[in-house]
Order: sequence, then C-alpha cells, then structure tokens
Amino acid sequence: MPVASVMLCLAEKHLDFEFVHVDMAKGEHKSHQFLSKNPFGKIPAFEDEPLTLFESRAITGYIAHKYRDIGTDLLRHDKIEESAMVGVWIEVESQHFTPPKISYIAIIHEVFVGPLIGRTTDQSVVNLNVEKLDKVLDVYEARLSTSKYLACDSFSLADLHHLSYIYYLMKITPCADLINSRPHVKAWWEDISARPSFVKVVQGLTLGE
Amino acid sequence: MPVASVMLCLAEKHLDFEFVHVDMAKGEHKSHQFLSKNPFGKIPAFEDEPLTLFESRAITGYIAHKYRDIGTDLLRHDKIEESAMVGVWIEVESQHFTPPKISYIAIIHEVFVGPLIGRTTDQSVVNLNVEKLDKVLDVYEARLSTSKYLACDSFSLADLHHLSYIYYLMKITPCADLINSRPHVKAWWEDISARPSFVKVVQGLTLGE
Repeated sequence: MPVASVMLCLAEKHLDFEFVHVDMAKGEHKSHQFLSKNPFGKIPAFEDEPLTLFESRAITGYIAHKYRDIGTDLLRHDKIEESAMVGVWIEVESQHFTPPKISYIAIIHEVFVGPLIGRTTDQSVVNLNVEKLDKVLDVYEARLSTSKYLACDSFSLADLHHLSYIYYLMKITPCADLINSRPHVKAWWEDISARPSFVKVVQGLTLGE
Repeated sequence: MPVASVMLCLAEKHLDFEFVHVDMAKGEHKSHQFLSKNPFGKIPAFEDEPLTLFESRAITGYIAHKYRDIGTDLLRHDKIEESAMVGVWIEVESQHFTPPKISYIAIIHEVFVGPLIGRTTDQSVVNLNVEKLDKVLDVYEARLSTSKYLACDSFSLADLHHLSYIYYLMKITPCADLINSRPHVKAWWEDISARPSFVKVVQGLTLGE
C-alpha cells in the first residue's frame, strides 16, 4: 500500500514512470540488489537519477516538492499556514492512523494476512484495534466538520496518504462502518476516492500483493 | 521527548519561546483547553500566531521551513538531493527507530515507565525489542560509514529528531551498548550530542516528566 501512495502522487502530478515489480514471494526484496536501494528491505524504493529514495512518505514529499509547479500542489507551497497543517496531518496519518503494527495494520493482519497463511483471526485483537481506530476517527470527524480536507480546504499529501489504506479497510475488512458511520469522514472518503488519480491507480491494486 | 525535539529545533534557530508546562499528572493534557490545541491530547502543542500545531515532527518541519534563513538550515533547502535524503531519514526515525509502541518505546516502557508505576520489567520484551533495534542500528552504522550525518554531510532535522531519544536510551536503559558498540553510530552520537543546542536543552530535560 505504500507503493500505491507513491503511484497516486505521480498520478496527481501527471508524471510517467516505470514500475519495476519486486517478487517478494521469491525474496527479491531481501536481495543484495534491492537492499542497495532500500537497506530495510521493504518496498517501495524510488529512483529519480541520480537519487535513490526509500520510505513512501519521503518519496511523495520529494515528488510533491520537486514537481510543485505541475499538477496538484500537494504541499500547499505558497501558503505557509496551509503547508504547516499539511505537515500536521501527514504526521497524524503516520502516527495515529497507520502506526506500525497497531490499529489499522493490526486489523489488516488479523482479518486478511493471517488467514492467508493459515492463522485464525483473533477477534479480540481486531476489537481492541477497532476501538483505537474509533477514537482516532472521532478526531477526523471533528476536523472534517470544519475543514473540507484534512490540512486545509484543498486536497494535499495528508489526504493522499490515506487513500490506499482506507480502500483496503473498506474492501477487505468488516470495518467499513468506521468510515460510513461518520458523515464527514464518509463524505471526505467519497470525495478523495473519486479523484481520477485514485480511480486510475486503484485498477492496478491487487489484494495481497 | 517530542517536546525536546521542538526545543532543540528552536535552539538551532536561535529563537526565543515561552514554555507552558502541561501538568499531565493532573490530566491537563486531556482538558478541554488543551484538546482544542491538540485533539489527541498529547504533548506538545505549539503556537505561533495565528497557527496552532501539533505532532512534534510537523512542528519542527514548520519551524525549519519558516525560519530557513536563520541558524542551521535543518532541511537543506537549496539542495534538492540533500533535502530528499533529509526526508528519507526523518521517516526512518519515525518508522524504524521510534515507531509507536515497538522497539525504542517498548524498551523505555519496560525498564523505566513500568517500574515507576509498580510493574516488574519483562526482560523478554526488552530482549525482543533490543533485537529489533539492533537490526535498525546496523542500517545506521552502514549509512554513517559513508555519510557524516544521516541525510548528508550536514546536520539536519533527521539527526535532530534522534537526539533526545538516544539521550534517554543511553541514560536510563541498560542498552547504551547498542550505540557504543558501533563505531560510526557512536562517533555520530558524540558529535550531535555535543552541539550547543543540545547541551542547552538537555539541562532542562528531566526524567519521567
């Protein structure tokens, strides 16, 4: 899903790119060649000569900054108050919505990844993390009742970083109600998921790959 | 410790500020007044009229951007290749070094916070997370053997974000060897912790507050 964020960002900027598939089933992400691009052995890695970058949010930040004058201005460059809020809500996604191994990620692991590898879903883990995400989304609902998008009244990287995560939450978990039960969050999700960039990228999103 | 990152950033920029203590023991961080500044009820919140920001990394990013021409250029603004790498290593700190509830944070909880509230340290949790951090720091050692600082050959926000975390790792855990056993990581730590900004801020750091 971090790959999808990078692809979405490129799509918002109308940039062409070459997609190089890394076969994780064959362990290619732990190969010497791939580790030279991302020393943590995680996808994605991103090449824009002479640079090789990793960490999806750093990659999208770089693209949004370098190509600020093309396509959607995802960092709200010219308005320091808006760009500051983009920064805040990018961190909220990273630290509250999708922190490693808790909340969102834990739910996906229990209801989707676990069963794929033969483990039974532990409903108590799901419930605990739905409860955590519930509190996080209360903050989103309050925010989106006074602001059209998370950072300001324009779509930004802060919104973009949520797209693929919420897509999977709606599609492969029984937790869609986390979004649908909150009118402002629901309206925001319907808005951002209708963007041409997302409609284009989502066609290439395959579950579990 | 996120508070310390913000203070360090202000010190690198030679900016004066007013420090407003939030008494967490009295639950002031969950008061209506504080929640209006940070809806997640966590410190810090930061005010720079007319803006109120939260999330420490968003705050330091804002300060480093707004005051780019004062003090240390923490985002390496004028060199896009360097600023891209600052972005990468800021994410590494956030996602690998200090992700919520695992690795670093788990160790601090087990050996320091737990005992404070009467819980016995679970050594297996410590060991598991030391093992995780060990792998993360191997990547740092390799990086710092070819680059003076994490993002480039200049000190940046990517380094700054680590300072207070490593300070506590060295000071209140039995895990200082994670740093000391790696020559390049050790030299980096000695360098960045000798910065006047850190020497100044560290005098105000009190354990457990």
